[in-house]
Amino acid sequence: MSLKVYVDRMSQPSRAVLIFCKVNGIEFEEIKVDLAKKEHRLPEFKAINPFGQVPSIADGDFKLLESHSILSYLACASQGVDDHWYPSDLQKRAKINSVLDWHHSNLRRGGVGIVINTILGPVLGIPTSPEAAAEAEKVLTSSLSKIESVWLSENGDFLLGNKEPSIADLSLVCEIMQFELLHEEDRIRVLTPFKKVLKWIEDTRIATSPHFEEVHKTLLASKSFFHKIPVGENYEPSSSIKAMLDKDITTE
Amino acid sequence: MSLKVYVDRMSQPSRAVLIFCKVNGIEFEEIKVDLAKKEHRLPEFKAINPFGQVPSIADGDFKLLESHSILSYLACASQGVDDHWYPSDLQKRAKINSVLDWHHSNLRRGGVGIVINTILGPVLGIPTSPEAAAEAEKVLTSSLSKIESVWLSENGDFLLGNKEPSIADLSLVCEIMQFELLHEEDRIRVLTPFKKVLKWIEDTRIATSPHFEEVHKTLLASKSFFHKIPVGENYEPSSSIKAMLDKDITTE
Repeated sequence: MSLKVYVDRMSQPSRAVLIFCKVNGIEFEEIKVDLAKKEHRLPEFKAINPFGQVPSIADGDFKLLESHSILSYLACASQGVDDHWYPSDLQKRAKINSVLDWHHSNLRRGGVGIVINTILGPVLGIPTSPEAAAEAEKVLTSSLSKIESVWLSENGDFLLGNKEPSIADLSLVCEIMQFELLHEEDRIRVLTPFKKVLKWIEDTRIATSPHFEEVHKTLLASKSFFHKIPVGENYEPSSSIKAMLDKDITTE
Repeated sequence: MSLKVYVDRMSQPSRAVLIFCKVNGIEFEEIKVDLAKKEHRLPEFKAINPFGQVPSIADGDFKLLESHSILSYLACASQGVDDHWYPSDLQKRAKINSVLDWHHSNLRRGGVGIVINTILGPVLGIPTSPEAAAEAEKVLTSSLSKIESVWLSENGDFLLGNKEPSIADLSLVCEIMQFELLHEEDRIRVLTPFKKVLKWIEDTRIATSPHFEEVHKTLLASKSFFHKIPVGENYEPSSSIKAMLDKDITTE
C-alpha cells in the first residue's frame, strides 16, 4: 500500500481526509501523529511535513500538506471517486474551490479561535483570553450565517445547491463537528440558531455513514476528558445534532 | 467581451488576478469597485459577490469569488495560458494548491493584520491596537521565514523550485507588495532579513513585466496619501525592493 495518511483524529481536517478515503474505498495506511504527545514536532514527521501539521500524505515519494489540497488531489488521482466529490466540470469545480478558499479566513478562523480560547488552549498551554474567544465567536457566528444565506441558499441538501456532497461539505462539516468539544452552553448558543446548518451536518453524516460516525468516535469520546462527564449514548453525533435540530433548546 | 473582472487595484488579490489576465493575454473588462467609496457594499455589487469582496469575476452568467479560485479557474478555462502557471500534472498542481492553501492562514493573515493595524485601520475606521499589530508581525515574520526555508528551499527562481512562475508566486508576491503601504521603518524591519524573498519578488516582477509595474502603480502612488510624501521615482517597485536586496539597510 503506497498511500500513507498522517493524521490525528482529534484534528478536524484529519477527519475530513480519513472519511473521504474510507467513503471512496481508497486504500491507505493511517499513521497516527499524536498531537497531545507532540509527535508532530518530531524530526521524522517534519521530514514528511516541515510545518509539523496534520493531515499530511505521502503517496510513494510524493508528499503533500494542507487538507484541501490533499482532498482535491486524492479526488483526482484515485480510481473510482464519484464526480460529485470534486467535479471535472471547470465551473462546478471552481465553485467548490471558492467555498474551500472562503473557509480558511471565515469558518476555520472563527472555529479554531473559539475552541482554542475556551477548551484546548488551557490544556495545550496556549495563551487564551475572553476577548479572543468573543472575537472568534463573532467571526464564527458571521460565518455560520453566511453559510446559510449564501452557500446553502439554493435548493439541494448540500453546499452550492448540490444534491450530493463534495469535498467542501466534508471539510466544513468536520470543522463544525469540532464544536462538540465546547462547553455545552457555548455549543448550543452558537449552533442552535442555524437550523439549515444543523440539517446539512445531518445530511452529510448520513451521506458518509458509517465512516463519519466511526472517524468521529475519538473526538466524541474525548468530551469525557475535557468536561469530566461519563461516556454514554449522547456521544453519537447524530443525537447531539438532532437534539438541536428537533427543538429550540435555547428557549427551554 | 464576456469576462468581467471586478477589482480595486489597492487590493492585493485584485492585482494578482489583473496581472495574470494581462500577462496571459486574456480578454477582459476591468470594472473598478472603489473600496474607499464603499462601492463593494452596494446592492449591485452584492449581486455579483454576496460577501462584497474583490476580486470577483463574471464569465457570462458564471460568477466566481476568492482570488485563488479565480486564478485556477482562469488558468484552466482560458486559451493560451502556459502550463507553468497551473500545471495539468496532478502532483505539480497539488503542490501549487498547497502553497495557496497555506497562504490563507499564514502570509495573508500576518500581512493583512499588520497593514490594517498600522496604516489602513485608522483610515478605514477599523479598530486597531499595538498588540494586534505585534501579533500580526509575529505571524508575518514566521511566514516569511517559512517561505524561505520551505517553499523557496529548492533550486529555481520560483516557489517549489520551479523555473517559471505559477499562480502561487503571483498571489504571494502581490500580498508582500502590499507592505509598500507600511511605514518605511516597519517595512524595512520586516522584509530586509529575507533576501531570498526579496530576490523572488524581483524575479516575479521581471517575469510579469511590464504588467506588474503597471498594475502596482495605484498602490505605489497611494504612498503619498498615506505618508504625506511626494510622488517620485522611489515609487517604482523595482527600486524599493532592490534597495533592500542590494544592501543591509538595517545596519546603516
